[in-house]
Amino acid sequence: MKENVKAYGAKDSKADLEPMTINRRDIQKDDVEIDITYCGVCHSDIHTVHNDWGNSVYPMIPGHEIVGRVVSVGDGVTDFKEGQLVGVGCMVDSCQTCSACKDDMEQFCENGATMTYGSKDKHMDDHTHGGYTTSIVVDKEFVLSIPENIDEKAAAPLLCAGITTYSPLKNWKVKKGDKVGVIGLGGLGHMGVKFANAMGAHVVMITTSPDKADDAERLGAHEVLISKDKDAMKKHQGSFDFILNTIPVGHKMDPYIALLKRDATMVLVGSVEPLDPFNGAGLIMGRKRVAGSLIGGIKETQEMLDFCGEHNIVSDVEMIDMKDINTAYKRVMDNDVKYRFVIDMASLKN
Amino acid sequence: MKENVKAYGAKDSKADLEPMTINRRDIQKDDVEIDITYCGVCHSDIHTVHNDWGNSVYPMIPGHEIVGRVVSVGDGVTDFKEGQLVGVGCMVDSCQTCSACKDDMEQFCENGATMTYGSKDKHMDDHTHGGYTTSIVVDKEFVLSIPENIDEKAAAPLLCAGITTYSPLKNWKVKKGDKVGVIGLGGLGHMGVKFANAMGAHVVMITTSPDKADDAERLGAHEVLISKDKDAMKKHQGSFDFILNTIPVGHKMDPYIALLKRDATMVLVGSVEPLDPFNGAGLIMGRKRVAGSLIGGIKETQEMLDFCGEHNIVSDVEMIDMKDINTAYKRVMDNDVKYRFVIDMASLKN
Repeated sequence: MKENVKAYGAKDSKADLEPMTINRRDIQKDDVEIDITYCGVCHSDIHTVHNDWGNSVYPMIPGHEIVGRVVSVGDGVTDFKEGQLVGVGCMVDSCQTCSACKDDMEQFCENGATMTYGSKDKHMDDHTHGGYTTSIVVDKEFVLSIPENIDEKAAAPLLCAGITTYSPLKNWKVKKGDKVGVIGLGGLGHMGVKFANAMGAHVVMITTSPDKADDAERLGAHEVLISKDKDAMKKHQGSFDFILNTIPVGHKMDPYIALLKRDATMVLVGSVEPLDPFNGAGLIMGRKRVAGSLIGGIKETQEMLDFCGEHNIVSDVEMIDMKDINTAYKRVMDNDVKYRFVIDMASLKN
Repeated sequence: MKENVKAYGAKDSKADLEPMTINRRDIQKDDVEIDITYCGVCHSDIHTVHNDWGNSVYPMIPGHEIVGRVVSVGDGVTDFKEGQLVGVGCMVDSCQTCSACKDDMEQFCENGATMTYGSKDKHMDDHTHGGYTTSIVVDKEFVLSIPENIDEKAAAPLLCAGITTYSPLKNWKVKKGDKVGVIGLGGLGHMGVKFANAMGAHVVMITTSPDKADDAERLGAHEVLISKDKDAMKKHQGSFDFILNTIPVGHKMDPYIALLKRDATMVLVGSVEPLDPFNGAGLIMGRKRVAGSLIGGIKETQEMLDFCGEHNIVSDVEMIDMKDINTAYKRVMDNDVKYRFVIDMASLKN
């Protein structure tokens, strides 16, 4: 066990984040030890710090968009070597035996995946701690290889925002020429636009804010549809092959369902809250579908990272020092970031 | 034009059904003239008579579960001959040229299918009239062949209740060994149980009423799950490959979504009204899907009827005379029929 590792965390749901130290487990046979260089700030970090979902454990070190370099590996590890650029996302372990794990969907592990922070650590008497720290030890099955050609610091958000948007686009087989809508231009939405564009789709950014149009087009949207413009919404009715819905709160679904073609699907990745009532008729007329999607499995996350290497895709990021995390949290809640904060972990080490 | 054809209909949304006469169009080149022997009573007949959906036209002759014998055919008709047992469902025409029609899904005709009653008739200056009458003339493309080995009068409800439940089971590829839930034991639900059973599924009737258990099992359910029993609902959580939801009104969806396996779908066929709010998290955790389905295309309706012939499937019916239609409507609204009223049209002819 390595003691007194520098970190930033919350001692309870009311507290600001503050400097802390944590104990880090010793390297096991199948473990990879990583020196963390960058960590993204996900909206769900904030929800979890505030215990919005009622299952938080403290003291809590958030962070599940982790990038770093391999420092050492256990005896059973052959796929990673010292100095390699790697990433860790939302999960650090799972049972590896249930049907979900066998189907490469560890995020739905029937015995409960070990989340990167706040889960029971299988190898020490503590809960897991996330990436707002300088060092982490993770089972090799949950370490991702990051292509060296992409910008290391801007790769961090790929580990959550990236896979959350890539996975449904792949799972629902978005292909060249498809008309794909991405609702909401934030941390998730801006990645959805980049991926759908790279997959060859005709990408329509659907947003309430006309002032986001220019940025949406810079990111890869071919059109911008203002959802408050009833005439424009009517013009696009029944025309979308797929819609990725990144709205993070409950919202009216009927206007978006009306945009779908016959047999097409809208996938929710942002809203875990109660959705406003919507009409069954909207689904029945046109045999339409509404579905959900949660991050992605490890195999698919690696596929996403390789895709990013091939297409030179990273997140648009704003760098911060660790000490500025509380200000960053406030700005995320005010929707004032383009499009993801990433912590430069050198600022914690010094 | 054939004048003074006996019928039963409503003169406005407040009126009881009463004897009327209608004009029936002359037989066109591609038409089939049918002597109606039986017509089922669908819950949507009642909604339409009452103008619950705001698009009704009067005087209205309802009825879209029509069975009868061919009397004569136009010069362009070779597939039907005098005396043949045939059926007509919810549609009597469509554009035949749009992508939905070309995909054999006339129910989603982009130019608007001609419904069996209340749509503009393309061949005369009148709106279409349904099956509560003695005679109907229908384009050959919308006439179905009914296998002679099944009970003619009990075949009538197949034309709407049958295809409405068969189509989603086929479209979502229900197969031998799948665990299939059917929510609600009424006109739609009892057909869903019979079809899912005939497709080799393990069928679970999901109902609020313990007193429906025996009947559900007689119809082909292997298990009955009482949705008010929280322990039982928990036991079945995450175990269904497919759920057919026939509830005809808005309702809580979360408890049923929780029953689905990872990647599984619940299809709504009954509820066109606003659904109660449900949690996005229920779909996100397990990548689950909610969809809608509307009757089925003509090709699929014929496939369903052939399936019924092969498996000897018909509806459970209670026969009524035409004059008793208003009492029957009241009993349908009170959920007091096992499971479909069928009008013996001889009672109108005499």
